[in-house]
Amino acid sequence: MRIPEVLHVEIQRGPGRLAQVLNIAGQKGYYIEGLQAVSRMQNKTIWELTLDMEEDDSRELFDEIADLHFARVIGRSDRVFDRHEGGKIRTEPNIAINNMEVLRDVYTPGVARVCRAIAADGSLAAQYTGINNTVAVVTNGTAILGLGNIGPVAGMPVMEGKAALFASLTALSAVPILIDSEDPEKIIETVCAIAPSFGAVQLEDIKAPECFYIEDELKKRLKIPVLHDDQHGTAVVTLGALINAAESAKITLKEARVGQIGLGAAGIGISELLATYGIKDRCGTDLNPDACKMFEETGGTIRSLEEVMACANIIIATTGVKGLIKPEMVREGQIILALSNPEAEIAPDAALKAGAAFAADGRSINNVAAFPGLFRGILDCRGRDFTGEMLIAAAESLAKQAGRSALVPDPLDKKVHAAVARAVADACKHPES
Amino acid sequence: MRIPEVLHVEIQRGPGRLAQVLNIAGQKGYYIEGLQAVSRMQNKTIWELTLDMEEDDSRELFDEIADLHFARVIGRSDRVFDRHEGGKIRTEPNIAINNMEVLRDVYTPGVARVCRAIAADGSLAAQYTGINNTVAVVTNGTAILGLGNIGPVAGMPVMEGKAALFASLTALSAVPILIDSEDPEKIIETVCAIAPSFGAVQLEDIKAPECFYIEDELKKRLKIPVLHDDQHGTAVVTLGALINAAESAKITLKEARVGQIGLGAAGIGISELLATYGIKDRCGTDLNPDACKMFEETGGTIRSLEEVMACANIIIATTGVKGLIKPEMVREGQIILALSNPEAEIAPDAALKAGAAFAADGRSINNVAAFPGLFRGILDCRGRDFTGEMLIAAAESLAKQAGRSALVPDPLDKKVHAAVARAVADACKHPES
Repeated sequence: MRIPEVLHVEIQRGPGRLAQVLNIAGQKGYYIEGLQAVSRMQNKTIWELTLDMEEDDSRELFDEIADLHFARVIGRSDRVFDRHEGGKIRTEPNIAINNMEVLRDVYTPGVARVCRAIAADGSLAAQYTGINNTVAVVTNGTAILGLGNIGPVAGMPVMEGKAALFASLTALSAVPILIDSEDPEKIIETVCAIAPSFGAVQLEDIKAPECFYIEDELKKRLKIPVLHDDQHGTAVVTLGALINAAESAKITLKEARVGQIGLGAAGIGISELLATYGIKDRCGTDLNPDACKMFEETGGTIRSLEEVMACANIIIATTGVKGLIKPEMVREGQIILALSNPEAEIAPDAALKAGAAFAADGRSINNVAAFPGLFRGILDCRGRDFTGEMLIAAAESLAKQAGRSALVPDPLDKKVHAAVARAVADACKHPES
Repeated sequence: MRIPEVLHVEIQRGPGRLAQVLNIAGQKGYYIEGLQAVSRMQNKTIWELTLDMEEDDSRELFDEIADLHFARVIGRSDRVFDRHEGGKIRTEPNIAINNMEVLRDVYTPGVARVCRAIAADGSLAAQYTGINNTVAVVTNGTAILGLGNIGPVAGMPVMEGKAALFASLTALSAVPILIDSEDPEKIIETVCAIAPSFGAVQLEDIKAPECFYIEDELKKRLKIPVLHDDQHGTAVVTLGALINAAESAKITLKEARVGQIGLGAAGIGISELLATYGIKDRCGTDLNPDACKMFEETGGTIRSLEEVMACANIIIATTGVKGLIKPEMVREGQIILALSNPEAEIAPDAALKAGAAFAADGRSINNVAAFPGLFRGILDCRGRDFTGEMLIAAAESLAKQAGRSALVPDPLDKKVHAAVARAVADACKHPES
């Protein structure tokens, strides 16, 4: 697996020496993700060098650097783990409880009045509690990223990551809920039982096909919006990217032939959204016959992997299988979105080299661009359900906001999420109130 | 119900006028909780006056103030509601996600490494997620404060209050979980299903007798600590207060006769802890025969309300019934803790006037002094279960920390909770790791 490896490299002072070190990394095929001086002494400097490289592949690199004689790797700071120390989120009070007056207002006895007011008029809960600003991020850990069924606790860093992003980008509170079960009924029952605590539910990294049933049932049973991010969040970002890619490649998107490789949660979510958007010519492939059946139900046609690669203008891969698409399969002028995380079906540079007109992977087309604004929008307008119109509005907003050369806009720009939220709220035809 | 009523009173400039206004409030029996000038003009001042008074009892007060001619009530700011606007807690990220490097460390692709590490060694979750620092605050809303069964959503302000206090006082993250069910099995199943998300479970405001069974079963089924705050948090603060009250009244606590009025969740929790502490002579009363049976199982003897009041040195009332204890029932030299919130069985001043040596209510003996330190302590030492020894250690810590004249220490002093946490951790004989 490629990881951001953070090295501390000590280099004796001398012109051109840093470049030589970087050159070694480059010759081994590693990208430089970051570089900063962490300590400067009179005759040497310590650089923090972040490389995007294969894990456990560093011994040789260290030796080659040491062979320069003026440089050596003196340590590896595991910045990724450092940044996870103690967890990535916390609960914070909205008000400083620093004297008895405040305590008696926000706790007993004052709080009793607010409880009674809500008991008399339930709609006041939206104003005087955080419920309507809180999203449950629910997983059972059966499909964490591309890592598979590693269990809910091992999936927690992803859930905390989502929650941290919700908070950073849209000021929504998100609460990871890890469910210790693979039984869809049990998951549905559990989410329904705790639903009063939340304004919306985001399902996350639950494997197909259970995820489809779980989402459908929850939508039926709950009065709050439910979204399986792996399906619909991914679909929104993908459609947003396609709108821009098609425009650049001068393809009329609705008339293009789209080929999907991998028809799991993300694949089916994308397929449904493309169908709603109006793309009729869609073929796809998957090893699982049930997945193929679901795809056909969305109006797509099943083909072999080779046929899909050969006939489609646009390829969307969501298989979780690294390197599945060989360069020789790529057709001249294709748009290729190889979305599996953390490892793509084909690296964008390899796809471009093989003749693709456009290529991107899950780094640049990541659902972090979509989910915060989707939830902010539906909660702002008190929508009951995410509709196809709302998802398309979000995708179009993303497409519009992307710069000329980017497929999707900067996901760390809060304005992006605010605009998506507005687009979603505007597309909400039937707000609850 | 007595509430903190916040009035804006405009008073024309003149010496002694503020005192006259306050005097009217005093004559009507209202305590002054707070007073500050919010606006000073040349010839008048607007005062924010906080009174502890009966709700809906203000018309007469307003009229009498207006009769002074130099003063009038110009508004009521509902500070309690203002302080609940938008809810009292939020999720915050522990790290600023402000550039792509951080995003790629805390989200994909970097997060995948942390997930894999935890999948390989589950104990790493304590270090790299917030699970072990997070408490689920669980209610079904069947016994919210003294308000009864008002449902989980109307109980949310209490749960958010608890969570805000956890965060403020001990830097624990707490997450309100509102369960939409009155079926004990359903509640147990639900909490077990979501338990991987949390380091501990605090049950809150769940009515008796279901609360006993729910707590017992959860303790059996879960590997994380579970505490029903209304039972054991209240018991700890009560025992802490009793230790000090007995010392001041020169009563040997373990030899005292303790009478309990009300044998619900709080009553039974107190009874169990007093038994563990070594108080043998305990009588009690309740209208519910099942509650009486539980009390007898803790070693207590059932008597009538009048008998309890007549024979006990120490009275502990937890009935939720305002004014149940009449002044004429009070015995000379009794210690009376009338703990129901928000309204006590007898006001402390009335009890003292009737001859009590010591009297306190739920304001000064509130479980906010206990629960934050109890949970901080058990999570710090990775304890599996709250034991009698841990609860007694917490009570003794509270007693020791209270000043000479106070029964319990200042609950807003973080040092108090840190000391309770240390006492709990020290009393933890069998930490999990």
